[in-house]
Amino acid sequence: MLPVALDAMGGDKAPAEIVAGARQAADGGVPVVLVGPPELVGDTLGLELVPCTEVIAMAEDPAAAVRRKKDSSLVRAAELVRDGRASAMVSAGNTGATMASALLRMGRLPGVVRPCIATPMPRPGRAPAVLVDSGANVECTGAMLVQFAQMASVYVQERYRVREPTVALLSVGEEATKGTPLVKEVHGLLAAGVPGVRFVGNVEGRDLLDCRADVVVTDGFTGNVALKTAEGALRFAMGLVLGVLAHDDQTRSAGDVLLPHLLGAAAEVDPERTGGAMLLGVDGVCVISHGSSSAVAIANALRVAHDLAKSGLATRVADLVARGAS
Amino acid sequence: MLPVALDAMGGDKAPAEIVAGARQAADGGVPVVLVGPPELVGDTLGLELVPCTEVIAMAEDPAAAVRRKKDSSLVRAAELVRDGRASAMVSAGNTGATMASALLRMGRLPGVVRPCIATPMPRPGRAPAVLVDSGANVECTGAMLVQFAQMASVYVQERYRVREPTVALLSVGEEATKGTPLVKEVHGLLAAGVPGVRFVGNVEGRDLLDCRADVVVTDGFTGNVALKTAEGALRFAMGLVLGVLAHDDQTRSAGDVLLPHLLGAAAEVDPERTGGAMLLGVDGVCVISHGSSSAVAIANALRVAHDLAKSGLATRVADLVARGAS
Repeated sequence: MLPVALDAMGGDKAPAEIVAGARQAADGGVPVVLVGPPELVGDTLGLELVPCTEVIAMAEDPAAAVRRKKDSSLVRAAELVRDGRASAMVSAGNTGATMASALLRMGRLPGVVRPCIATPMPRPGRAPAVLVDSGANVECTGAMLVQFAQMASVYVQERYRVREPTVALLSVGEEATKGTPLVKEVHGLLAAGVPGVRFVGNVEGRDLLDCRADVVVTDGFTGNVALKTAEGALRFAMGLVLGVLAHDDQTRSAGDVLLPHLLGAAAEVDPERTGGAMLLGVDGVCVISHGSSSAVAIANALRVAHDLAKSGLATRVADLVARGAS
Repeated sequence: MLPVALDAMGGDKAPAEIVAGARQAADGGVPVVLVGPPELVGDTLGLELVPCTEVIAMAEDPAAAVRRKKDSSLVRAAELVRDGRASAMVSAGNTGATMASALLRMGRLPGVVRPCIATPMPRPGRAPAVLVDSGANVECTGAMLVQFAQMASVYVQERYRVREPTVALLSVGEEATKGTPLVKEVHGLLAAGVPGVRFVGNVEGRDLLDCRADVVVTDGFTGNVALKTAEGALRFAMGLVLGVLAHDDQTRSAGDVLLPHLLGAAAEVDPERTGGAMLLGVDGVCVISHGSSSAVAIANALRVAHDLAKSGLATRVADLVARGAS
């Protein structure tokens, strides 16, 4: 089996935590190849390194950076997949540049209008739901959202082993008549029947966490706002709780008892655990890890990427999309 | 001073909690008149009741209900304001029908393209920020969003005594180049200078709680999704914490110490405390309370409505909007 190409320079904790995660994954049987400038990566912990000369920073303009830095770790990682030298790519770096590298070097799957990002949303005690598009396309057509529903359904089957994933549409009410013209159009298209999509109606923002549907479809603007709002609200709640624990000696003692349990509950809904977001619709597997990824998160992402490449995710996505929307 | 008209039949806990809230407000010096069918309202606790024969239910289609039920408590409450018999209206009932009643009976302020809903977002230790539009208009133009910014700025000044409120635009990144065409257009308009609006740039979903800006502007679809996502995420976090407290005898004991503090922190971010959302741009004051409003929340909403009517909110909104967008 081909190795997974890992952008050794991507992420807030690169390269040390990234390389450490690669080592963990390799020890667990996942073949990995690092990509990065040797003098910056430093100790590869015995792993293979494909050398390059450039790095795309977190804050750089994605399109311009990918155009200019042709010998960057991100662009080279995507090329390894394109050239059949890697099975998949993983990066915790600049999300836009990861997307652009994968799109430009690996290319779109035949029939796919636009790739999209699928991000896991926690459901305690069971597999996460996924939100598509969580930020790749700020402007969408109905046809694009229908394809997002198809691609995410295949993804959830392969990734979480949900046999017949349910799909909901994000709106401002459960009724088919609620929402923007785009939402109403997509509701009509999905309700009329789309191959591979088991549509269960609209959900609202309040349903996104612990969601009853396995897939929630929306445009990339709304999806990105909703995802970041949920992240911000969970962080806000955590801040309130920590404030309470620090109130006085009594609450601090109670906190000593509760903190391990609270951290356990928080870990279950932590993006670190989920293996990262997935770029769907490109000709290959591309995992976009959280910028704050630790070694554990990277090892997880590498394992997910490896498994999905092995299962032929891209081929299955292309097959379903080819069956069209009716 | 004219009384505030209160829809006695609006809200999950109507009429008992609603009437109790009215009594509390009246005892605190806020003149109140109830509106509802006498046989359904029952004991008015000594308050004046304007009788009517119909009630609009929570789940009814707003436009159709307001058209058909001309003698409903909601429509009659709006008419009391229109006819100069009440200073303001308050309802915890069907949000869409409250909006439609106010719009159709009280009318739009001169120059206002579309009214919008401003909803408070918690900031512990200080006045809430407000999110406009949080659901009145799923489709918006740039001119509408600019007016929302103006109207919400006046509202925040009057309601929370913020002298020069700051205004941010909700987007998917802080850069002016990020977002939908609508967002980019509005960014340009606000950055060029709008009377009464102190624009401080874009914010993202993760910034909505404990927001640095006093006003966050967005279209009613995105605003509604964001608001409900934040509500859902806070409820989700609360569920996780309560789950931890119930884990075993040790955590239950710790919970006994912490629970009063946790409930105190939760109360600070509770919609009950905020006095409800405000419909801006109609010719009068209209407070839309949460459907789950208790007597305390209703008393609060009545006080806010009374104060805003007294301060001449509608006149100030109309004056600012008349100064245009440049």
